[in-house]
This record gives sequence, structure tokens and C-alpha cells, in this order.
Amino acid sequence: MAIEVPTRAAVVVPSAAATSVLTPLGGPNVRVSGGFWEERLRTNRERTIPRGFDQLRAAGNLANFSLAAGATGRYRALGEEIGLVFPFLDTDLYKWLEAAAWELGRGPERALALAADEAIVLVVNAQRADGYLNTFVQVVAPGREYQDLAWGHELYCFGHLIQAAIAWQRALGDERLLDVAIRAADAVDRELGPGRRLAVDGHPEIEMALVELFRTTGERRYLELAARMIEARGEGRLGSGRFGSAYWQDHAPVRDAPTVAGHAVRQLYLDCGAVDVATELGDAGLLDAVVRRWKDMVATRMYLTGGLGSRHGDESFGDPFELPPDRAYAETCAAIGSVMLAWRLLLATGDRTYADVIERTTFNGVLPGTSLDGLSFFYVNALQRRTERAANKPGHGEREPWFACACCPPNVMRFVSSWPQYLATADDGGVQLHQYATTEIDAPVAGGTVRLATETAYPWDGNLRVTVLEAPERPWTLSIRVPGWCRTAAVRAPGGERVQLEPGSRDITETRSWRPGESLTVELDMPVRVTEPDPRIDAVRGCVALERGPLVYCIETADLPDGVQLEEIELEPGVAPVTLPRPDIAGSLVGLAVHARRRRDRRTGVRDEGGASEPARTAKPDQAAEAPVEIGAVPYFAWANRSVDAMRVWIPRSSPAGDGRRDDEDHDRG
Amino acid sequence: MAIEVPTRAAVVVPSAAATSVLTPLGGPNVRVSGGFWEERLRTNRERTIPRGFDQLRAAGNLANFSLAAGATGRYRALGEEIGLVFPFLDTDLYKWLEAAAWELGRGPERALALAADEAIVLVVNAQRADGYLNTFVQVVAPGREYQDLAWGHELYCFGHLIQAAIAWQRALGDERLLDVAIRAADAVDRELGPGRRLAVDGHPEIEMALVELFRTTGERRYLELAARMIEARGEGRLGSGRFGSAYWQDHAPVRDAPTVAGHAVRQLYLDCGAVDVATELGDAGLLDAVVRRWKDMVATRMYLTGGLGSRHGDESFGDPFELPPDRAYAETCAAIGSVMLAWRLLLATGDRTYADVIERTTFNGVLPGTSLDGLSFFYVNALQRRTERAANKPGHGEREPWFACACCPPNVMRFVSSWPQYLATADDGGVQLHQYATTEIDAPVAGGTVRLATETAYPWDGNLRVTVLEAPERPWTLSIRVPGWCRTAAVRAPGGERVQLEPGSRDITETRSWRPGESLTVELDMPVRVTEPDPRIDAVRGCVALERGPLVYCIETADLPDGVQLEEIELEPGVAPVTLPRPDIAGSLVGLAVHARRRRDRRTGVRDEGGASEPARTAKPDQAAEAPVEIGAVPYFAWANRSVDAMRVWIPRSSPAGDGRRDDEDHDRG
Repeated sequence: MAIEVPTRAAVVVPSAAATSVLTPLGGPNVRVSGGFWEERLRTNRERTIPRGFDQLRAAGNLANFSLAAGATGRYRALGEEIGLVFPFLDTDLYKWLEAAAWELGRGPERALALAADEAIVLVVNAQRADGYLNTFVQVVAPGREYQDLAWGHELYCFGHLIQAAIAWQRALGDERLLDVAIRAADAVDRELGPGRRLAVDGHPEIEMALVELFRTTGERRYLELAARMIEARGEGRLGSGRFGSAYWQDHAPVRDAPTVAGHAVRQLYLDCGAVDVATELGDAGLLDAVVRRWKDMVATRMYLTGGLGSRHGDESFGDPFELPPDRAYAETCAAIGSVMLAWRLLLATGDRTYADVIERTTFNGVLPGTSLDGLSFFYVNALQRRTERAANKPGHGEREPWFACACCPPNVMRFVSSWPQYLATADDGGVQLHQYATTEIDAPVAGGTVRLATETAYPWDGNLRVTVLEAPERPWTLSIRVPGWCRTAAVRAPGGERVQLEPGSRDITETRSWRPGESLTVELDMPVRVTEPDPRIDAVRGCVALERGPLVYCIETADLPDGVQLEEIELEPGVAPVTLPRPDIAGSLVGLAVHARRRRDRRTGVRDEGGASEPARTAKPDQAAEAPVEIGAVPYFAWANRSVDAMRVWIPRSSPAGDGRRDDEDHDRG
Repeated sequence: MAIEVPTRAAVVVPSAAATSVLTPLGGPNVRVSGGFWEERLRTNRERTIPRGFDQLRAAGNLANFSLAAGATGRYRALGEEIGLVFPFLDTDLYKWLEAAAWELGRGPERALALAADEAIVLVVNAQRADGYLNTFVQVVAPGREYQDLAWGHELYCFGHLIQAAIAWQRALGDERLLDVAIRAADAVDRELGPGRRLAVDGHPEIEMALVELFRTTGERRYLELAARMIEARGEGRLGSGRFGSAYWQDHAPVRDAPTVAGHAVRQLYLDCGAVDVATELGDAGLLDAVVRRWKDMVATRMYLTGGLGSRHGDESFGDPFELPPDRAYAETCAAIGSVMLAWRLLLATGDRTYADVIERTTFNGVLPGTSLDGLSFFYVNALQRRTERAANKPGHGEREPWFACACCPPNVMRFVSSWPQYLATADDGGVQLHQYATTEIDAPVAGGTVRLATETAYPWDGNLRVTVLEAPERPWTLSIRVPGWCRTAAVRAPGGERVQLEPGSRDITETRSWRPGESLTVELDMPVRVTEPDPRIDAVRGCVALERGPLVYCIETADLPDGVQLEEIELEPGVAPVTLPRPDIAGSLVGLAVHARRRRDRRTGVRDEGGASEPARTAKPDQAAEAPVEIGAVPYFAWANRSVDAMRVWIPRSSPAGDGRRDDEDHDRG
């Protein structure tokens, strides 16, 4: 018996014909009811999203739509103030609208609904009779429609419009935006569809939106248009621009390119669309190409935090193992794009590995992009900050309330709003839990509906209790991911003994006729891990990182004794840090107490006592000048919420005494 | 008795009133007659400069001047092909003309003289009646004179025009360009001089040129205009642009800014002008400010190669100790600017330290920017290349024959042409040798003229013989720098014994009544040095570099045994490399033979044998899997002249067996 999908209130909803292995549950079916994520979701709903609307109004994004509708005034493309023009400001509003849809779908909120109504009216009124809608082109460059696909971001804007529209339809049954989106998609199809000009946008995004529009409307033209754009890429249509054709993934066909390349967000969004097309068309070759790229990317170009993109200049992936912590770009949007891609691959394949990367990236790649109070943002997520700040690089120093190019904040808003969708899936055979959170879940299985309650203090401890509240009589399988970071875990099924899991287990599965009230408990051991980098990562050689559970930790100046500089700190091998509650930072936050060594400050390389200057090198460390020091570490996502000073994730390890590494090896002395 | 300067055929010629300590010798007074530099100078003269003229013609730089003079055609600002416009292409020709002047001053060369004549006529004809001359503004933006000082580079162009004109006057007595330059400088003075608008250019350069124009013409207005521009900087007149006001050193007054900041070439050129102004005005405070910045820069922001500028995006200095080898920007022009600045500081103070940095930077920061055949160039000088190339970044991969923004190649041409000027100085008391080269030197001292011959195989060995060919009767002092890298040296004066120098000596000085035919010999011990980085340079922790004499060495894939990857190589502590002649690369080139270890290739961090992907980390090295391997190293300046593959200057050092560093420290296993 085929099970009807209970709700389509999700970002990704494969059609019945798709080759996906797992079936998503909509947001309303997975209700976060407490714990870590309840607080993050509440902050997003009550603080980040309302403030976001204020920022959009202040930045002129709303007014731009009025201008496109015929009002008079000056168009605002904020970048002009720094010598750039950003033609994609419309998407900031579309992403905010998407967030508003998921929030209102979870429950009414009058102020939010009024703000969203205002925005929707603006969007509706700005659309031209022929379906075209792009405030920049309509106001600033009329007549230039589809003329600058490389840099103009028109299709990118359409993509976000479509995604917002689908969220409103799926979460609330509100089709005002969907009508706009369909007319816009039809306009694009008339311009660039079969028999017309074969073209792609410099910034992928519309591909995944069109697939979802197909999934929502059943109109196959949209899927075909998406597939057409995926296939057209990689043949040099966009030219080489300033950064080469790989910048916009136009250097090699999507099904051939062996590795990720170019602008990280563009690559990730493109591969999202490719997976969507592949699963709808049953195109195993296309799916394999994405999987191959993804595996290589994770193994060679992903920061410990899940961050992606090593270079500032072109916001690109670096070479393999080019992962500098200080100059990490690791754009918040790239982390979100990575979760979006891993989620599509998880649905397509059922492979738990993708859920591991979602977990790592969400905690350590996405969350650090927002302050704990929800009101300021990082665009760039460095893994190290020296004491001296990058003062001459606006937006890349401390978290800021908004940006000239404000892609990240509203992306965070829509992502956090949709986070419950990423926690679990369900199918005929049962329910699959992918992430650890305190929730209530409704899921259809063969024979009826399962209702579960999950309880956990995750990520602060590794215990999870799953209680069945309601279930059909016939057997079904509860399946729970064992995180990739976990080395030892135990499980206790209802009425059973505590059983240690086999090493290497990726799944806990319990198939039975569950009765209401029965519980299964999982215990994941969560010791502090001292992680060594791959030796091919030059930038962190000789360092270690501290991890616990899904969290990467970091050391900030605020957690050093007075007068100690972070650059003097080395970790002592073999002494494991211990946990330490840190209510001073956030209620339940668990920090670490770390036994370290303080290296005495050394003079910069000098040749003689007279102080002749030479490039920083050949310092002669004083072996006696190390002292033990007790310091703290906090989760990386919580950094820069106190004084903003030095920080580092990768920490030099001190060498054991007497290993000779500190000897003067400058052979011309001898 | 005041000694008249024998020739003014030099880039920098302080006036008689300047507070400079040392007096430069002109190019014709220091004739490179053999050895290393003879070959580099010949290559520059016979190959680089002629090819440069062809490139300038092909790129349209020459034609742009015709357009400004009234011809019709399309203006070429090459960057347009990559989505940028470069309004400073005139300077490429001016720098080439400067190189041509120094070369023709050393000796006639018909083809070069004809090319230069063609160029000079173009420049003369392009100048407007009012003295204004800027092909971009005249052709593309007429009426916009001095309207975009932040980005327009107009004064920067004037500066290079003036420098070329001065070279023609000093080297050849040819005043055709000087007339143009004086009329241009007068035009600038009418626009921006005392009583007019107070303004500075986004790219410093005109300041040092105006001081030299004062030195050449005696017209004090030019010195005052330069001083006015130095003093006007740092008050925010340029706005913050895309990169903040520090990008163009407009964030703090020149005499206050404590550290170098922003765009490296801009900072270095600015400080050149500041030193020139300070010495002419006897402004000790201004000089001190530059010295303070310089010392901090060398100690915290200079690569081992002398390279400057850690960041690609804004071509800027990074934070202190932010010195990534792979992503080093280290623009060739910045190295040249650094030598120009150190030379001015050496003249101003007499401190040998500046000559040390000139040596380090010239061999390892400037020379690598040009191929050994003199026909292709690096703009960016990375200290490491992984096997995978930065294929999507034009101009930043392999050496190229020219660039859209071609500032570096003609800067190399004029710098190498003027290199003999940097070798020695002279004053009443004697002759000061700053660099080691095979030369003939004429110098005025009290009582007559000294003629010297110097002979050396430097940088391949450290022996120098100085023979007096002619000298006045009265005593004078021969003074020779002992390089900062040198730990042990000996000297033998005429008729004397071989004497070991005191450790820490910076100078060899011998005062006597020299007779023709007498020789002094210097022996600098030149062992291979294994250099450790300052522990605050995170990017090269756990690595060492190989140096010998003034040269930094590197390892290229071509010098590894077949099948060995550079990423597998570690250096064994305590085993010093030995020298090895490498005639296969260049006649007299001395490479190194290095005893290293090959680390077995390790799988990227995986959690279980099933191959679950996680970010590159927690690789478990196999302690037994290291094998000794013999490899080669070559001077860094000579890299990328064979197959272009992986390269590194900083090489991981293998840890001694049994030090515990390789243990599995992932505590959650235990």
C-alpha cells in the first residue's frame, strides 16, 4: 500500500516518481519542543526575522519593489556605496519571505503576518504584465532583460522568488506568490526554453527552484527547463569573466566535472539542482557525478567546521588541502548550501554520511554566522583571528547587523526556519531519525500514523530517549543515526538490556509492534576528542583541534588568564580537556577546561644582539620558558559573543621535552 | 673640500643640501663586468626589454598615445577583456622608457634607441598644450581631469612619466621627455599646488618623482608639492572605497601611522616619497616614522623571500605573521618597491641592515618574477604550489608573457637596468660596497678618483676580491658590508694575514693609502642553513626552509625521484644538505642535495573502514611508513623554469622517532 505524504510543507518534496530513497517529513510534522534547537528557533522567529524585515526596509529592498511598480525615487543597490552594484537585492526579500512562510506555518504571529503581507503585495505589484520581475532591470536597466546572464543574476532572483512562493503554498496554502512565480517561470521558459536560446545564469539557483515548481504544480515544463539548464552548463557560454569559467562552473559539463571548482555557493546550488533533476528523471549518471564531487570535496576541501571556500578574492574553493584557518572564507551561505546539498543526497541515497555532514556543518558552519542574540552576522567564518583585526575589510571583522551584499542573513533566517525538516524522514517501513533534538514527530507508516516524542540534551550530552506516543498495530522500524564522530554507544530497547553497539555501527534499528508509551534510549559516549589534521593540510601542521560530540571548540582570549596572549598558547599532548558548564555564555552551554602551556614570548628572528632586522624567522625559543596554564574553550558557534579578540580552532601542540625539535638547527652556527 | 658628484646617472640623487649619509654612484660608475649579474643584465637588455616593446605595441599602449594625439581608433585598456578598465596603461611605456635610458646610458644599441625614439615622439605628441597628459582621460573621459583621484591613477601616471624623463636626462643628457615632464608637473602644480585644491592620488608614486624632479631642475616648487601631498595624506580625502581607507594609506597621517597597511605597493611607494621629502627637508620626524614602519614590516610581515603582501583580494599586507606560503601574493612590484625604499633608507641612514634586505629581496623577491630566459613573468610569487594549479586565476598560475594589468614586467625591466646603482656608494672618505658582484667602479674621494675591480662568484660562493686599479695618494677607506646571513667570515688586507672577523661584524673597513694593484679579499662562509620560522607564523609551523648565502632554496617536483609526490616529503632534522652544481638549469647554478624522508601517502581522515567521508582530518599516520629519499633543491629564483608542477620553500620536518607526536591522540578511542 502506497503511503500518502502527510504534508508537503518542506523545501524539498520529491515527486512520487522520483528515485529518492527517503521521504521527507514536513516542518509541521517535526515540531521542535525543547532543548538546544527550541532556543535557536525561537531566537530566529522572535528576533532575527523581525529585525531582518526592519533591515530590508532600511536598506531599500522593499522600496525597490515600489519603484519597479511605478513609484518614483532612487533605486538602492547598496553596493554602490562601496563602488559596486549588486543587482540581486530582490533575493534578500524572497529569502525573508520564505522564512516567514515556514514560521507562520508553525503557528500564527500577527506582526510577522502583517509584514509578510506588505512584502507580498509589493512583489505582486512589481511584476510586469508579461511575467517578468526584476527590480534592478526594471528600474535601472530597462530593455536589458536577459542581456547579462553572466553577472546580472536575473535567473538567480527568479529562483529565490519561486522558492519563496512554494514555501507559502506548502506551509500555508497561500498561492499569491505562487501565481507570481508561475508567471515568472513561464516568462523564463518562453525566453530560454526548448527551441529558444540555450543559456544559463552566472549564479545557479533557478534549477532547484524549477524542479520544486514542477513538484508543486505537476507542470513538467519546469523540470525540463531545469534539466536543460543543467545540461547546458560547462560549455563556456558565460565566458571567462574576471575569474575564469570555473568560477561559475562553466568550465566542464555538470556530469563530467570531477571536482568542485570556483565560487563555492554557485557550485553547491548547482549541484542541488543537479540532484533534484537526477532523482526526478532517474538519471543515475548525473547523480553519480554529484556524489563523486561531494566525496572529493569533503575529503579535500572542507574545513573541520564544515565550512567551504578557502579564498576571499573569488569566494572559491581552494586547491585540495588549501584550508587556511585565518583566511578561511567559509561563507555562511556556502555552509547553508552544503546542508541543502547533503540533504538532497541523503534523500536520494539514504546514506547516513550525508547526515553526518549536515550535523557538522549546521552546528559549526552555519550557527557561528549568527550571534547568540540573533541580531548580527558573519559573512566570513574564519577559524582563527589574530589579535590585530582585519580592520580594513568591512564586514569581515566582527559580526555586523547587515551587509551591503546581504545574502547571508536572510539565508540564515530561511534555513533555521526550515531546520525541523532536516531532522527525520519516514516511509512505509518506519521512521528514520537523522539528527538529535527534542521533538514531537507525526509520521505516516504502513498501517497508520506514528507519533513520537524525542528528548535529549544534545549537543551537550549524547543521551536520547525516543518514546512512542501512538503507533499502528503492525510492526515498523525505528531507525536512528549513530553519528560519525561517535566511537562507543549503547542502546536499550523497550524491555531489553543495555546493549553496547558494535564499533562502526552507523544505525540503530529496532523493528517491532510498538505500543504507546514504550521507549528506546540511546547513549552516545561524548568524550573530548583531540583531533589531528590530515598531514596534507599545510596551514595547520603541528596543531590539534578540540571536539566533543558534534561540536568543534575554540579558544578565545576571554578564556585565558589575564595577560596571557593566545599566540603564546600550546596544547600539551596527552592531557585531555574536561567539560565545564558555562552558564555565563548561555544557559546550558558546555565549555572545556584545558591544561595548556604558555610559551614565553619570543623576539622575532634577529641575527645579533644589536637588533638587526630580518624577516620573521629563526627565532630561538627558550626551552625553559614554558609554563603550565589553565585555559577555557567554548564551542566555535558561540565565539565572538563576548569581547571580540583573538580566537583559534587549531591550536599548536607543544612538543614533548627533549625531543630535539627546539634545538638550534641553524647549521651555519656550528 | 666638497667632492662633486661625478655623475647623476641614477634613480635617486639627493641634493647637496639633503641630510643623506651616503652618496650614490651613478650606473656608469658601477659597471657590472662579469658573473651572476652580468648574465641577468644581459638577458634584461637583449631579451626582456626588446620583447617588452613588442608587447607594449601588441597590447595597444603605444597606439593609445597616438589616439591621445588625435589619431582615430579604439582605446585599449586591456582589463576591459576581463571586466575591468585599467586607466594606468601609460605607465607601462614610461617604465619601459626608463629602462631604455639606463641601458642606452651604459652603451649604444641601435634597435633599442630606435624603439625608444618612436616611443618618445608618441609621448611628446600626445601631451596637450596645457601640459596635461593622460591617454585614458584624453581619449575615454575628456573633461574628467583630476575628477577621480582615488581610482584614476592620473598622478601615478605623471610620476612614472617624470621618472622616465629624469632617466633620459641623467643617463643620456636627452631632455625631450624632461620638457614634457616639467610641463606636466607644472600642470599638476597649477591644479593641486599651494592655494589650490589639497588632494592626493589613490596610488602614490608622484611624490618621489617630484622630489627627483626638484633634484634635477633645482625648482623647489616640485619638492614643496611632494611635501604637500605627503602631509595631506591620511585625512580621509580618498574615501574608503571598496577596501577601506587604509588600502591607499589614507587612514592615518604619514608621520603617524605606526605600521604599514593596505595595498603593499602603494605603501612602499608612498614611503619612498616620504624618505625623499624627509632627507631634502631635514625632517627627522618624518624619516623616523618611515623607519619605524619599515622595522615593524620586516619583523612581522615580510616573507623569507623578502616578498610583501599576503592577500590577493586587495593586494594588501596581512595581519602580523599572516604569511601563508601558498596564498602569498608577494607581487613582483612590491618587492621592487621594497628595494627602492630600503635603498632610500640606506642612503639616508647608512645602516647596513637596509642593504641586507635589498639583497634578500632582490635575489628572492624580484628575480623569481622573471623566467631565466627573460621572457615571461610572475605577478604573484607564491612560496608554495600544490600539484593542482590555480587554473581558474589568470596570471597567477605559471609565468606569463604579459598581463592585462602589466605593471610588473616593465618594472622589472627598469629595476634590473638600474641594479648597478644599488651596489656601491662613495663619499669624501672612501667607497662603500653594499652588494657582492663582479664590477669595475669609478668613485670620487677626497684627493682624486678611486678605480676598483671587484671579482666574485657570488651568490654561488662567498669569496670577494677587491683590487685597487687607481687611487689618490692620501688615505681613504674601503668599506664592505658583511651580509646579515653570514656567521663567520675572514678578510685579508694587502700584505696582511687572513683575519677572522668578530662575530656580529657588519662591516669590513680598511683605511690606508692604497696603491694600484693592491687587493683585499673577503671570505664569507656559506654553509647551508636550515631555517626555522618564527613560531608566530602559523602557516609554516613545523616546517623549515633551506638557505645558503643570500639565496632561499625550494624543492620542485622535478627534483624528486620518479613517483614521489612533493606532499609526501619531510626533511630530516640534523642532516644538513650539501651543495650540488646544477648546470642542467643554468651554467653556474648551485643546487642542493637533500636527505629527506618520504611519508607514505595516507588516506584522508576516515572513521571506519567503510570509507565514511569526513572533513580532511584525523588521518592515522603509519609510523613505519617512512623511507629515506634523496632529493634536490634549487634556488627559489630559478623555480618554474622546467616542468611547472608542485614547489615549496617551507618543508615539513619529520619528527624524531619515538617522540609521541604520531600517536593516536583521539582520546575517545581510549
